[in-house]
Amino acid sequence: MKVVRIDIEFEDLDAGGVVHHPNYIKICERARTRWFGEFGITFSSLKNKEIAMVISSIKANYLRALRHEPVHVRMKIIEKTEKSLTVLHEISPIDTEKRTPFFSAEITLVAANISLGRSCPLPEEIVQFIESAIY
Amino acid sequence: MKVVRIDIEFEDLDAGGVVHHPNYIKICERARTRWFGEFGITFSSLKNKEIAMVISSIKANYLRALRHEPVHVRMKIIEKTEKSLTVLHEISPIDTEKRTPFFSAEITLVAANISLGRSCPLPEEIVQFIESAIY
Amino acid sequence: MKVVRIDIEFEDLDAGGVVHHPNYIKICERARTRWFGEFGITFSSLKNKEIAMVISSIKANYLRALRHEPVHVRMKIIEKTEKSLTVLHEISPIDTEKRTPFFSAEITLVAANISLGRSCPLPEEIVQFIESAIY
Amino acid sequence: MKVVRIDIEFEDLDAGGVVHHPNYIKICERARTRWFGEFGITFSSLKNKEIAMVISSIKANYLRALRHEPVHVRMKIIEKTEKSLTVLHEISPIDTEKRTPFFSAEITLVAANISLGRSCPLPEEIVQFIESAIY
Repeated sequence: MKVVRIDIEFEDLDAGGVVHHPNYIKICERARTRWFGEFGITFSSLKNKEIAMVISSIKANYLRALRHEPVHVRMKIIEKTEKSLTVLHEISPIDTEKRTPFFSAEITLVAANISLGRSCPLPEEIVQFIESAIY
Repeated sequence: MKVVRIDIEFEDLDAGGVVHHPNYIKICERARTRWFGEFGITFSSLKNKEIAMVISSIKANYLRALRHEPVHVRMKIIEKTEKSLTVLHEISPIDTEKRTPFFSAEITLVAANISLGRSCPLPEEIVQFIESAIY
Repeated sequence: MKVVRIDIEFEDLDAGGVVHHPNYIKICERARTRWFGEFGITFSSLKNKEIAMVISSIKANYLRALRHEPVHVRMKIIEKTEKSLTVLHEISPIDTEKRTPFFSAEITLVAANISLGRSCPLPEEIVQFIESAIY
Repeated sequence: MKVVRIDIEFEDLDAGGVVHHPNYIKICERARTRWFGEFGITFSSLKNKEIAMVISSIKANYLRALRHEPVHVRMKIIEKTEKSLTVLHEISPIDTEKRTPFFSAEITLVAANISLGRSCPLPEEIVQFIESAIY
């Protein structure tokens, strides 16, 4: 599993003093963006090839509330098709590594051709990224 | 189904010019908050009774990208337990009513006692809300 | 003055239960976008002409805290140059019309040519908008 | 001057592909929160003493657009009164240190007693923080 540290910001909290539920999805994206970025894969690099990775589905479980604290986001590719990949994300405060994650989400991303406006095969750099990530 | 109109804001868009994926979850909450609010159920009214409705799970499907446009959020309670309810949310641009929704999400909310920090039976006003909503 | 009603959302609140300070700027933009939109002036319509209206300065005063409530945003153009306009925004809860606004901001927007990446004269539709707005 | 590195996130961008203007204010807060945090001063630590530091005014200049890139936020206390402090924030991409900042803002924070709902003298830890920061 790939682990990325993310600092939760004050702006991520809601009026209950815990992380607002849509922001868990943002935290996943922050971590995933850093992971992909290590392989040179960014929104801009893909856009230059007329490709975008778009979210097609999310299955998320909120187990315990995150607060204003640094977290680890653990990520693992759990499925791959010709046009998509599914990444499992688990978030825990950095001080509670061994315990059950506070949040987990399976997020599926599909490659899309921007000009055609429809799905397309995963670009070569994503295929290689997946291979590096898995093995 | 309950239908609420929500205006997507410029701030909801991402660098691709479409609604940023976590913001679909925010749009669901905006609509749900108005629906609950019509029954006098708000974050504050529940907090006064030491209760919060917290998200426990989300299953979301992103079918087509929303842009900077007004949408209808259609909501329906599809499950109820002693401590939770699950609301189906479907979002479509207001001009495309008949077509498949652009986004759908099943979001489960659990009643939690704030001082005890654990789940509790749905408060009476939520039970009544569910009955009114269903029948 | 132009008055636009905006519903503050739960997501706009911070952990103190009041509107998070950067979100007052977002509320101004929500109102301004509706105002400009009534004249057919949108991000997209301007982009089609290679123009963007970019923020160049903000002078904001936070006088009282906004909560989860509907507000009125009162707007008035207080300055115009060849390339810019300055809009005064005042925000108050809809129930407190007569009192001092809770927030006021002078926001200056400059026309920019997107391809050249530099400021340019205000496009004709903005000039006309300003005239309609003032007289 | 205190310098803090902040990573701009994809979520900070607007449909123009640059940082959305209210988010510059959020980036200032992210940096300021880390600076105060190094002195043990947090939203929670202040709240325990019934104190909040609230924003009372912002004077911001947007000079060049920030993109999806790491930035340095340089901060300096430029004014102090019995109840307030004013912090100058300057943001630049980390690769352009020597040039004019892309954004600068003078942000004034006032100490407020939460239960009384009105301003109060700066708490002792903030006074000490200011002294450490200045000398």
